Amino acid sequence: MEDWLKDDERLDYLLAEDLRIIQSPSVFSFSLDAVLLAKFVNIPISKGQIVDLCSGNGVIPLFLSTRTKAKIIGVEIQERLYDMAVRSIQYNRLENQLQMVHGDVKDIPPLLGIEKYDAVTCNPPYFLDIESSDKNLNEHYTIARHEVLLTLDEAIHAASRLLKQGGKAAFVHRPGRLLDIITSMRKHRLEPKRIRFIYPKMGKEANMLLIEGIKDGKPDLKILPPLYVYDDNNQYTAEMSEILYGGKG
Amino acid sequence: MEDWLKDDERLDYLLAEDLRIIQSPSVFSFSLDAVLLAKFVNIPISKGQIVDLCSGNGVIPLFLSTRTKAKIIGVEIQERLYDMAVRSIQYNRLENQLQMVHGDVKDIPPLLGIEKYDAVTCNPPYFLDIESSDKNLNEHYTIARHEVLLTLDEAIHAASRLLKQGGKAAFVHRPGRLLDIITSMRKHRLEPKRIRFIYPKMGKEANMLLIEGIKDGKPDLKILPPLYVYDDNNQYTAEMSEILYGGKG
Repeated sequence: MEDWLKDDERLDYLLAEDLRIIQSPSVFSFSLDAVLLAKFVNIPISKGQIVDLCSGNGVIPLFLSTRTKAKIIGVEIQERLYDMAVRSIQYNRLENQLQMVHGDVKDIPPLLGIEKYDAVTCNPPYFLDIESSDKNLNEHYTIARHEVLLTLDEAIHAASRLLKQGGKAAFVHRPGRLLDIITSMRKHRLEPKRIRFIYPKMGKEANMLLIEGIKDGKPDLKILPPLYVYDDNNQYTAEMSEILYGGKG
Repeated sequence: MEDWLKDDERLDYLLAEDLRIIQSPSVFSFSLDAVLLAKFVNIPISKGQIVDLCSGNGVIPLFLSTRTKAKIIGVEIQERLYDMAVRSIQYNRLENQLQMVHGDVKDIPPLLGIEKYDAVTCNPPYFLDIESSDKNLNEHYTIARHEVLLTLDEAIHAASRLLKQGGKAAFVHRPGRLLDIITSMRKHRLEPKRIRFIYPKMGKEANMLLIEGIKDGKPDLKILPPLYVYDDNNQYTAEMSEILYGGKG
């Protein structure tokens, strides 16, 4: 086992899936956001090609592998996270289905192929670069959480370039950026079709949103039922438990 | 009583309020949408000036009069509805607070005063003019429901022109038009700040949205908790009952 891990890394279970993932407390661990995005996006089941941008330690490709036989490429700019993702893929013996690319999302579309993919997912950095007071002093966290190297608009533009006409792009973000996401998606030919707001519990404001658009799709937006994470006793709601522990997606 | 009414009109109670409203089955009756918008919008309580665009039979000004001492002007283009609203205001002896203007929303801002108002509400026609298959054959319904005489963008533009800096504009519409509303609001300097989605019941998609923006406000959108209209037994939920019958707003 130790051969797979470096430094302070550990081999975590990927929730209910029969998969493990290499994580490190000093870099970045996957979050609920990634899990929800991986369950939310519409993907082809039996074949096709998918790209996950801002892939981090590869959590979304790993999750998606339980839902589809499609090939999945993860793109990550941080060498350390990229390297962890590569080893997780090897550990799970998924090299035939999953592939990691170490590179900058902005430059990636011509390298991977323009208008070639069926679906693109992206859990982008959430915080504007100007919000420097929020910045974590750890560079790995800063790059993963702030728009230092990649703006939201650049991420959405890259997703659109990769997608075939009719292909689907799905993002997770904070509700405060809803207007920016929508504006940017439409600017880059991704018509928003489904939005789901995540609420920490009933009676609270939403703190996360999932949005999916179709390249060159017709306007017809649906607001899906809300998802509540915790119930009044601060336990996961039944739906949340099902998503997290309910078995294969 | 009969002196107040014409043709097939009737004098309905305005829910729990101590107010009556003249309605007619052959024209257009107020809907849940108007009630929810009148409860949703932030308005000054003790003084100020408010405009309600696309006022119909005056339901929103009547509701708002229970929440504020501000002067309220309703604007309605259809003579028949305007006339009903005027008589409802007289019947309720609210002439000192409420005033109706018979006119076209597009032309109204310079007549009422540019950048003069604290809040503007609008329950606009919901359906694009091109959706002709949906069009009701009754002209009164068609004008009230379709963008024949007024587009969504024109309504939002008029609202913005009327508002002071920092003034609030609130709209009710269908979720399918969320992107258009947001785009148009931002174009006309109304920064969306609060959105509430209305769901017919748990587990269903939203079928209505309430949105409020602040003129020249800073970006900071909040997605409020969902509002469910019916419970699993098809009765109004407790929150909905409170809104409809719970007393003065």
